[in-house]
Amino acid sequence: MQHTDKTMDMITGLCKTRGFIFPGSDIYGGLANTWDYGPLGSRLKNNIKDTWRKRFIQERRSSFEVDADILMHPRVWEASGHVQSFSDPLLDCKECKMRHRADNLIDDFDPEAHADGMTKEEMFQYIKDHHIPCPNCGKHNFTDIREFNLMFQTFRGVTNDNKSVIYLRPENAQGEYVNFLNVQRTMRAKLPFSIGQIGKAFRNEITPGNFTFRTIEFEQMEFQTFCKKGDDEELYSYFKEYGRKYFEDLGLPAERLRFHDHEKLAHYAKAACDIEYLFPFGWGEINGTHNRTDFDLTRHQEYSGQKMDYLDPETNEKFIPYIIESTYGLDRTVLAVLSEAYDVEVLDEAKNDSRVVLHLKPCLAPYKAAVLPLSKKLSPKALEVYDQLSKHTMADFDETGSIGKRYRRQDEIGTPLCVTIDFETVGDSEKPADNCVTVRERDSMAQERVPIEGLERYIKEKIGEF
Amino acid sequence: MQHTDKTMDMITGLCKTRGFIFPGSDIYGGLANTWDYGPLGSRLKNNIKDTWRKRFIQERRSSFEVDADILMHPRVWEASGHVQSFSDPLLDCKECKMRHRADNLIDDFDPEAHADGMTKEEMFQYIKDHHIPCPNCGKHNFTDIREFNLMFQTFRGVTNDNKSVIYLRPENAQGEYVNFLNVQRTMRAKLPFSIGQIGKAFRNEITPGNFTFRTIEFEQMEFQTFCKKGDDEELYSYFKEYGRKYFEDLGLPAERLRFHDHEKLAHYAKAACDIEYLFPFGWGEINGTHNRTDFDLTRHQEYSGQKMDYLDPETNEKFIPYIIESTYGLDRTVLAVLSEAYDVEVLDEAKNDSRVVLHLKPCLAPYKAAVLPLSKKLSPKALEVYDQLSKHTMADFDETGSIGKRYRRQDEIGTPLCVTIDFETVGDSEKPADNCVTVRERDSMAQERVPIEGLERYIKEKIGEF
Repeated sequence: MQHTDKTMDMITGLCKTRGFIFPGSDIYGGLANTWDYGPLGSRLKNNIKDTWRKRFIQERRSSFEVDADILMHPRVWEASGHVQSFSDPLLDCKECKMRHRADNLIDDFDPEAHADGMTKEEMFQYIKDHHIPCPNCGKHNFTDIREFNLMFQTFRGVTNDNKSVIYLRPENAQGEYVNFLNVQRTMRAKLPFSIGQIGKAFRNEITPGNFTFRTIEFEQMEFQTFCKKGDDEELYSYFKEYGRKYFEDLGLPAERLRFHDHEKLAHYAKAACDIEYLFPFGWGEINGTHNRTDFDLTRHQEYSGQKMDYLDPETNEKFIPYIIESTYGLDRTVLAVLSEAYDVEVLDEAKNDSRVVLHLKPCLAPYKAAVLPLSKKLSPKALEVYDQLSKHTMADFDETGSIGKRYRRQDEIGTPLCVTIDFETVGDSEKPADNCVTVRERDSMAQERVPIEGLERYIKEKIGEF
Repeated sequence: MQHTDKTMDMITGLCKTRGFIFPGSDIYGGLANTWDYGPLGSRLKNNIKDTWRKRFIQERRSSFEVDADILMHPRVWEASGHVQSFSDPLLDCKECKMRHRADNLIDDFDPEAHADGMTKEEMFQYIKDHHIPCPNCGKHNFTDIREFNLMFQTFRGVTNDNKSVIYLRPENAQGEYVNFLNVQRTMRAKLPFSIGQIGKAFRNEITPGNFTFRTIEFEQMEFQTFCKKGDDEELYSYFKEYGRKYFEDLGLPAERLRFHDHEKLAHYAKAACDIEYLFPFGWGEINGTHNRTDFDLTRHQEYSGQKMDYLDPETNEKFIPYIIESTYGLDRTVLAVLSEAYDVEVLDEAKNDSRVVLHLKPCLAPYKAAVLPLSKKLSPKALEVYDQLSKHTMADFDETGSIGKRYRRQDEIGTPLCVTIDFETVGDSEKPADNCVTVRERDSMAQERVPIEGLERYIKEKIGEF
């Protein structure tokens, strides 16, 4: 089978036209870098959440999920270091008023310059020394570089004073850390144990992009493992591999995944590694695994005054646990799964016949089956089958257009099975009903006759479990 | 069986000690009126989401879920009327500086006064005429009444100017309305059809309370049905009943549910009704169903300039659809389900023996089964059983304390089935293993011997489907 190369435009186009992902606030011209999940996208996203909950919470011993509020006490972000240093270095062109990230200006000018290792002053000097122009107007008249914090601020209560500033969380992690004591106590958990969370985070970035890859509002699936110092390095390696295996289980092939070990480490980390997937636009991070040492709990102990000690029941030692963090970008995982599944198959080159098909893993597909009456006369029977299936599985119903067109529509949205009700199903005065349906498989396009009675079980077996 | 009366304190206490719900940012002394769901609470909440998705999306024809961003274009909130009129009337005591809601002052003074029908000026006059004192200091020296908007504001980009103000959504509904055209088009939906959404909303209220009943950050499960004018009244009645049935299916008994029809209607509504549940603190709203007419889509047409017409394929008429909204407070539903399930059973009055038990519907319980080795010597076998079960269901493992204590712990968190591994299970040199376990049922406390081989199916049948 021949395939046409895929581009981000093709994937974005499918998402918008087939109900996966729409621009946020679309009728108002959109709000930059926000996206709304449509009926199929939200179902796909939820299915991915379910796989994560199964692999990371349900199937793992001593693994606990929490669902912490987005709004947290402002001291949390002082302890985490975000108030002081979670910022972008920005400067304005005095001529055209365009605002730029200083590090991006330098990296675009010379990727070998490594702006991320420079101070504000060094960046300013570099821009001056190398006569880097404003990319918008070409002039050389910049303001000084100032650091702008990336956290969205809001105000608790009705007065906009400093005392009442709170933040939209820029990461989920702190929600797990501040609940360390509560979870440990109520679950009577022993090290090593893990706290996971799925939830939204917000970053006030001015240069996001690549569809849903980088947005101002995004969802993460996070897994924090608390452990004894000395066990941290083994767990760090373990969770790198566990993550890769998880992505492979979602249908991302090994050859389009790679580890990217960080050389330059954040102040809290002893080791850090991304898992990257090869998107149509290039390699992009979909997971980050960090050995955060005892930095976080030590800081929270210092800022909250609450002892973050763990008492080892075997040795009677007291110590502050290390943390191995493994964070999965949910929107990015959805985008990777969609990118991987997207395919244009050339069915007959001579006839210029091709189909777009999403080869999603059946357990991830928004609809598991579509019920299609061959003729509108058969719709009552088809609706009966659809209503019965819908009690147990997510099904679609489509009675419009030729059967071939309807197959293609379902291919495009990744429905693994099409269930066609035809005249044999219901019979007529001359031929008795055979009470069977034709089931067509998405990838092979093979068809099989299946009794309605056994249809539910047939579908369940074909879909399988994650 | 005798039962002890339950109070909110008892339920709150259980939630905090057994990992259902913790105060938000607890180690920092909490952030007022925020709550974090712990391991058991987040699982219960997710299970309720799943039931809602099943009943409202999966099982219903032409019902579509979306997942819109929390951050929306600011014009959305002008169109919805929130910028202009989503506010509380507040006044300050000039003596003690305490801030109050004017309507609450009046209603607390005389519940028959109906402050919600008064203007700002009328409220001020009423407070003056009736010499209502400051509840904090008893003085009579108030400021004028001012309206404070309840939306949390933040700023997009890095400058805090008026142009860049955006809001945290105070309700989900607008996310469904602005996606009306996209969903209708991509799903080729015909009226009546529905768009549902589960998501967080935020309200900057100064007087929330009653545990998770009223909080500044909360989650809603919303269902908006778009229909032709003329079909609206029947659908409105239909969804009131559909909601009551849903709550009954969750285990809330008919006698603790009631409809509360609104006499005073919001500016957009033609009819409105709450479903209330009788909490230990009194009746409280857990659902709101509204006939919103064509108000919302008409306003969005006006503010966005996008035609919100639906073209009726049968009559070729063009019109703006009516909307029947039915909103379920998710946190409140969790609280209602917990309140209803909570029970203190007096097992033996003479011996002062009682147990706390959560009579949760099995499909809602955080853990479906707990695996308990009778002795730590049996832990390896028990872990084997646990690991096997965990591939298919959410299970707990507990090897500490007497078996009676462990049963009580599982009763308290609503686990329907306890699976005990004993010495007969594994056998010894004299007696061969019987490869069976003892399964104890939470409510009846009856025990049954079950072969390990059939355990998974046994549990599945006992738990049942929603």
